[in-house]
Amino acid sequence: MELDQKMNGTLFGVGLGPGDPDLITLKAARLIENATTIAYPTLAGGDSFARAIAADLIKPDAREIRMDVPMTTAREPAQAAYDKGAADIAAILKSGEDVVCLCEGDPFFYGSFMYLHARLAPKFTVKVIPGVTSVTACAAEAGQPLVARNERLTILPGPMDEATLRERIAGAEAVAIMKVGRHLPKIKAVIDDLGLTDHATYVERATLPEQIITPLRDAPEKAPYFSMILLTKGADPWL
Amino acid sequence: MELDQKMNGTLFGVGLGPGDPDLITLKAARLIENATTIAYPTLAGGDSFARAIAADLIKPDAREIRMDVPMTTAREPAQAAYDKGAADIAAILKSGEDVVCLCEGDPFFYGSFMYLHARLAPKFTVKVIPGVTSVTACAAEAGQPLVARNERLTILPGPMDEATLRERIAGAEAVAIMKVGRHLPKIKAVIDDLGLTDHATYVERATLPEQIITPLRDAPEKAPYFSMILLTKGADPWL
Repeated sequence: MELDQKMNGTLFGVGLGPGDPDLITLKAARLIENATTIAYPTLAGGDSFARAIAADLIKPDAREIRMDVPMTTAREPAQAAYDKGAADIAAILKSGEDVVCLCEGDPFFYGSFMYLHARLAPKFTVKVIPGVTSVTACAAEAGQPLVARNERLTILPGPMDEATLRERIAGAEAVAIMKVGRHLPKIKAVIDDLGLTDHATYVERATLPEQIITPLRDAPEKAPYFSMILLTKGADPWL
Repeated sequence: MELDQKMNGTLFGVGLGPGDPDLITLKAARLIENATTIAYPTLAGGDSFARAIAADLIKPDAREIRMDVPMTTAREPAQAAYDKGAADIAAILKSGEDVVCLCEGDPFFYGSFMYLHARLAPKFTVKVIPGVTSVTACAAEAGQPLVARNERLTILPGPMDEATLRERIAGAEAVAIMKVGRHLPKIKAVIDDLGLTDHATYVERATLPEQIITPLRDAPEKAPYFSMILLTKGADPWL
């Protein structure tokens, strides 16, 4: 078993940050530049955002394992996609070669890498390289400090049902609401009901050239998946 | 005014990540390598952790602005330190030169950079470069996915009083408790009372050579400031 582990390659789950390729870490950049095999998920056979972030670093002759994750609420087709991806990756690892899996943001922060981790960590060496999350990237681009001292930060996914969302926001201090997308009207209504609209900032595609930052009241009607709402107290005169 | 803005330098608040210099972003690395003036806080005149992370990238002849923040609970001495630091930085910016302020982790995530931001953003161009936070770095090193799908993440500072801490943890899903330090016994007691000890991981100095990762029940008696407790549900078999 020990011998096997030594002969097998390592799977790297590599966080790429929020979108600007300049926000890739030195470690992630080096791993991608040297990778002979990269892997990444795509949604419904479309382009991979992760691959786009890393594009300039990928060797022209690198082997690429695409995992086409179908857009459906049914579990089985997505399970099958990760099963196949894990099997393809395992085959490379068994040959003694490493595989670098490209992950938007951070692999363990709302990342699909956890599905590969669950399948492969019991059998292979898996290393995770953390990345800059969209939460701090949005705050940086908006020029809004998130939390300081004894403040707490609550991170909520936009798809939460309205009652839960209301309860969580009402009891929170600083809040980041992720994955806004088609849930924007519901989230806006909750924030408005709670009288917090003046504290809310909308950020879309943070750090990319097409980035939008605006007070929530001026947010566009339609939000993409990669959008966020920040609720912060703003500048704090404590010191 | 517009002319002034053009002639003034820019203040960059640069996140350096959790400690491993390899987790600095490409953007931060380039800014530091080209910086003619760097600034950083030190605690009570001691070494600067931020400067240590970036050390290999700093030009030998870079001007260095140290802000010696006294260790005291009184506000005035710390205020005076940031006032002086802001004035020193402003003098460089007015000369038309940029200043790169080094920040552990991410500048707007429990970072002291917000005190400089509050003082200087009204008068100068300030840009914030987000960094990898210790939260995702600890999860990566521990091999524990933090949150997925519709899960929420609560980030709590260890110094919170016991009753508040208990209430926040009891109502949470995944939790990261920052800045554990001397609050370890209190936090352990709360987690134990809530029956969550089996789900708790202790991480100290994540990504540094002296890193410690252990189940909370085996945590050392004394924790440094840069330590964290993660409460996660662990591997999730959803897909």
